[in-house]
Amino acid sequence: MEKEIRSFEELEEEALKLSGECGKVVLAVICAEESETLKAIHSVKKRGIIDGILIGNKEKIEDICKKEGIPLSDFEIMDSSDEVDASRKGVKLVREEKADFLMKGLLPTSVLMKAVLDKENGLRTERIMSHVAVLKPPDYKLLLMSDSGINVKPDPERKIEIIKNAVEVAHILGKKKPKVALLTALDKVTEKMPATIEAAKVVELWKKEKIKDAIVEGPLAFDDAISKHAASVKNLEGEVPGDADILIVDDVEVGNALYKALVYFSPTRICGVVYGAKAPVVLGSRSDNEDIRFYSIVLGAYIMYSKRRNSYDRD
Amino acid sequence: MEKEIRSFEELEEEALKLSGECGKVVLAVICAEESETLKAIHSVKKRGIIDGILIGNKEKIEDICKKEGIPLSDFEIMDSSDEVDASRKGVKLVREEKADFLMKGLLPTSVLMKAVLDKENGLRTERIMSHVAVLKPPDYKLLLMSDSGINVKPDPERKIEIIKNAVEVAHILGKKKPKVALLTALDKVTEKMPATIEAAKVVELWKKEKIKDAIVEGPLAFDDAISKHAASVKNLEGEVPGDADILIVDDVEVGNALYKALVYFSPTRICGVVYGAKAPVVLGSRSDNEDIRFYSIVLGAYIMYSKRRNSYDRD
Repeated sequence: MEKEIRSFEELEEEALKLSGECGKVVLAVICAEESETLKAIHSVKKRGIIDGILIGNKEKIEDICKKEGIPLSDFEIMDSSDEVDASRKGVKLVREEKADFLMKGLLPTSVLMKAVLDKENGLRTERIMSHVAVLKPPDYKLLLMSDSGINVKPDPERKIEIIKNAVEVAHILGKKKPKVALLTALDKVTEKMPATIEAAKVVELWKKEKIKDAIVEGPLAFDDAISKHAASVKNLEGEVPGDADILIVDDVEVGNALYKALVYFSPTRICGVVYGAKAPVVLGSRSDNEDIRFYSIVLGAYIMYSKRRNSYDRD
Repeated sequence: MEKEIRSFEELEEEALKLSGECGKVVLAVICAEESETLKAIHSVKKRGIIDGILIGNKEKIEDICKKEGIPLSDFEIMDSSDEVDASRKGVKLVREEKADFLMKGLLPTSVLMKAVLDKENGLRTERIMSHVAVLKPPDYKLLLMSDSGINVKPDPERKIEIIKNAVEVAHILGKKKPKVALLTALDKVTEKMPATIEAAKVVELWKKEKIKDAIVEGPLAFDDAISKHAASVKNLEGEVPGDADILIVDDVEVGNALYKALVYFSPTRICGVVYGAKAPVVLGSRSDNEDIRFYSIVLGAYIMYSKRRNSYDRD
């Protein structure tokens, strides 16, 4: 059974522990010729949590490493002068089990995703891919939020898939039966607010699907989901109000604004990966800070360690 | 000319100063029989910023005042045992210039709004009504956000009206030419993301309308709007990126989630009023904290002082 991870520090410690037990996971970075990306990988590598393969313009990568004081001997470098080629090479490394997960460097998300989602040579599973963010607000437990980055306006069927991905990440983080809140502006279903109707449909679908080991409730407003006080003054029933482990946002507009507002205006720590393919993908934004980059890599590594350990367990 | 208000403390100080210069503004509270509401009004009254008329169940109001140690002599109480009647009485007080602005107590928003919007006896202007929130994040200037509470899914024409209201409040707060960001998940117009297309339409309409003394730009993501670093790494052009004074959200789902997330997970201070009728309406949520309640009343009062002073100025 997974240990329940309660903080970013614990995530880091447990990833480090597992790197000793199971052998290091390998991160393949696509178009690594970017200093912020290289610094982040170097930090996680130094911490002992990953090994890395840098794919991209070899000359530029070496120049940046020298400039940033990153020892070239720390990483394998795979030359590629083309974004499409670099993406394919990274995906191939994962398929051949020479790398465990991917990180986006200096290229458009769409180019990398095309290679990941390629039907013949990609990393598709039966699942869709969705972004799962992990938040640690100062006065609340670890909280997952999805989808803030990949699915623009998911319908109820797609939201069920998004929930499945988030629940799986919650299980990996040791939350046995995560409480999932379908986030809207109001805690009641009303025709005036389409998102509340959608949330009710998702709850219905969820009841049919019986997604393993999770509780899904909504519509719930942000305060209803995470504040026991708000849930109590509004007399909300159920197990999720005031105690949510996962927030499912209505669309990318809500998710993106929430994510960025918490990064810029709050001390909430935040990281995230794209989940649902054979390997997690770390998808940084150019404006991400060091903490987000570092812990997004650690999160991706921890997910892969956890999978590796569980496959060992089954032997 | 208005002084530029840079913090919640300044808002309070200036409101107090004006209460001395222009005579106190009067707040009429609809269905005041709620302890949190009464405590908030009492605090602002004690501070010397308002006088108040409490409309509602007189017996209950008196009971709560006794229990909370609020002197009954502080307020005029107007008996009314019915939500509709109380709403009409409050609106009538404003029409008769016996009260300057309104606050919602223990009744549904829709009941109060019906009285406010009544074509014959209400407080309608040519404007729509919209919620204008005022935020003070720790490391950013005063920032307005609209609409987080009234308009569910405003189209571009309605967004122009929402912008006009927010710009007017910004002018009242002394920001001569506020920079308005149309908030979306992305800084580029793409068919895949309808909110970005809407934002571009709003900018077009805005150019035609030439709303006085404001700059409107978008689509812009949250970080693009408020972070100079994000705006710079993304090479965004324009006057608004990194320096927004007003955020216009795409719909109530985004606005509500942002508002609540900042209240619960960040040290950002926040208050707000519904603007666009003849008088501002303070519309608390039952889960609002004391700071929000206090400063929302102060904001409503400051708006009315500012209007009163300007009409004096014109004499």
